Amino acid sequence: MSVLILTEAELRQLVPMDLAAIGAAEQAFRALGEGRAIQPPVLALEIPPRNAEVDIKTAYIEGLPQLAIKTSSGFFDNPAHGLPSLSGFMAALSAETGRMEAVLLDNGYLTDLRTGALAARELARPDARIAGVLGTGLQARMQIEALKLVRPLEQVLVWGRRAETAQGYADEMTQRLGIPVEIRDTAEAVVREAEIVITTTPSREPIVQREWLHAGQHLTAMGSDAPYKNEIAPAALAYATRFVCDVASQSLALGELGPAVAAGVMTETAQHTELGTVVCGRAAGRTGDDDITLCDLTGTGAQDTAIAAHALALAQKANLGHIINA
Amino acid sequence: MSVLILTEAELRQLVPMDLAAIGAAEQAFRALGEGRAIQPPVLALEIPPRNAEVDIKTAYIEGLPQLAIKTSSGFFDNPAHGLPSLSGFMAALSAETGRMEAVLLDNGYLTDLRTGALAARELARPDARIAGVLGTGLQARMQIEALKLVRPLEQVLVWGRRAETAQGYADEMTQRLGIPVEIRDTAEAVVREAEIVITTTPSREPIVQREWLHAGQHLTAMGSDAPYKNEIAPAALAYATRFVCDVASQSLALGELGPAVAAGVMTETAQHTELGTVVCGRAAGRTGDDDITLCDLTGTGAQDTAIAAHALALAQKANLGHIINA
Repeated sequence: MSVLILTEAELRQLVPMDLAAIGAAEQAFRALGEGRAIQPPVLALEIPPRNAEVDIKTAYIEGLPQLAIKTSSGFFDNPAHGLPSLSGFMAALSAETGRMEAVLLDNGYLTDLRTGALAARELARPDARIAGVLGTGLQARMQIEALKLVRPLEQVLVWGRRAETAQGYADEMTQRLGIPVEIRDTAEAVVREAEIVITTTPSREPIVQREWLHAGQHLTAMGSDAPYKNEIAPAALAYATRFVCDVASQSLALGELGPAVAAGVMTETAQHTELGTVVCGRAAGRTGDDDITLCDLTGTGAQDTAIAAHALALAQKANLGHIINA
Repeated sequence: MSVLILTEAELRQLVPMDLAAIGAAEQAFRALGEGRAIQPPVLALEIPPRNAEVDIKTAYIEGLPQLAIKTSSGFFDNPAHGLPSLSGFMAALSAETGRMEAVLLDNGYLTDLRTGALAARELARPDARIAGVLGTGLQARMQIEALKLVRPLEQVLVWGRRAETAQGYADEMTQRLGIPVEIRDTAEAVVREAEIVITTTPSREPIVQREWLHAGQHLTAMGSDAPYKNEIAPAALAYATRFVCDVASQSLALGELGPAVAAGVMTETAQHTELGTVVCGRAAGRTGDDDITLCDLTGTGAQDTAIAAHALALAQKANLGHIINA
């Protein structure tokens, strides 16, 4: 048996945020929508004495040569010791034999290459030109970069809790995107002005309010991934023409659907559409220019499997990585 | 970040089945019994189109430097292609920072080093001299070898479905153990004669019957790890003086407790004791020479974490393995 080990640096070189990466996410959601994926619930190990959590996701997708097991950990006391809170890796098993094929020491990079752009491609108006982003971290960078691949963006607006960080984001992203990136003083100003909004904050209180939404808008919420997190006001969820989520059970447990159901303005089962069914055409996404579409993403094992298989196909061609003969 | 990769050959060299390995299992069960372990339910990915299943276990144990994430896969069409059905590996994360520290490509070896001997040490009569084993595979070998470390064995009896395999087991193990290992024609003969019995079969119908049990006996069931497997007749479970299991919820879902509850002879909650509580002295194990004790093991994430930490401590001393700088 030989096992391929790929480091984060190798994976960054190998797997850019490009249309092929978005295609891998599409493949995952198409499989989910068509019932060709098997995706068990997330395994969550909560470690209160360490102020930490480890999440494990996996999924099998018919037709892909590997299946991934993705571990992501958040150790929230790390910053006090000069380390980032989040880390992670994927293991790829042969989907045919179950033998270990590769370890992707991606440190979360492959997770970040995720589906904001796919959701926008499926749900935003094709002519949307102004994007807004709440938050100024890695997700805020990667998702806007991906969005530019699928919509004719001419301007990006950003809001962050700390003005200097937001300014840093604006300066860096203006360079990287080649279009103006401007800061706004409030989340409200960003949401009222932008045609596509991406929220990437770890907020525990809803930021986006119903009154800020306007006809034709699309919003993707990426930040909430725990029961105590919430970026979008329940009333805003209920107000949208269509509420889409990657996995309904996760959106209920960890994402934006939970607080809206708790507030009594959404039902557990009737008012959401899963992204996979939109991707494969079994459910409607945007049906008109004035629709307001909202999408909540919590992360799926199927995406992890699809992006791992994509990375391994690229690694094979590029002949990158260390091989361990075991 | 540097990640240590250890192969199966290195791990076999590093971590023998010895009292220290049994000590690691004891450490895990003591932590479970004392409430110093956090162990979420197993993540099971069933893949019917591949006749396969992938199981993922993890646990945090207070005081250990790592936590393990153990993946075991069974791809039951593999033998048709000349490959073993089972494989597996562990990833070890720092329990302090969540960063990946090591990948143990053990192929299931560290899982096999498991708790049969610990259960027998806690529950069998100290003077037990005759061991019996049902099944002739790897588990049947390793568990008897471990048992010999904790009880003054003078003889081993074995039964297997195929006589020539059983004979092969007897010949090999007579050599390895230095005591006579004899085959018996029936499971019944083994169970009636042996003072300690270990069952390691993948049987789907109960093998061990109530009438075969006798005063003073201890039996450990290792084979059942799926809802459709069952080695011990429900009446035998109910007949035992004490029924112990590693994790009650797993014994109910995957082990021997499930069929006994379904048969109406055991309750879901009242008639079992978890091994951890026996190890740490919070519950009684064997209370007299005539007790009949039964123990059902389905495997715990806590054991995996303890054995991984044990292996890594040994690896550090031995300076074995490949280091990947990531």
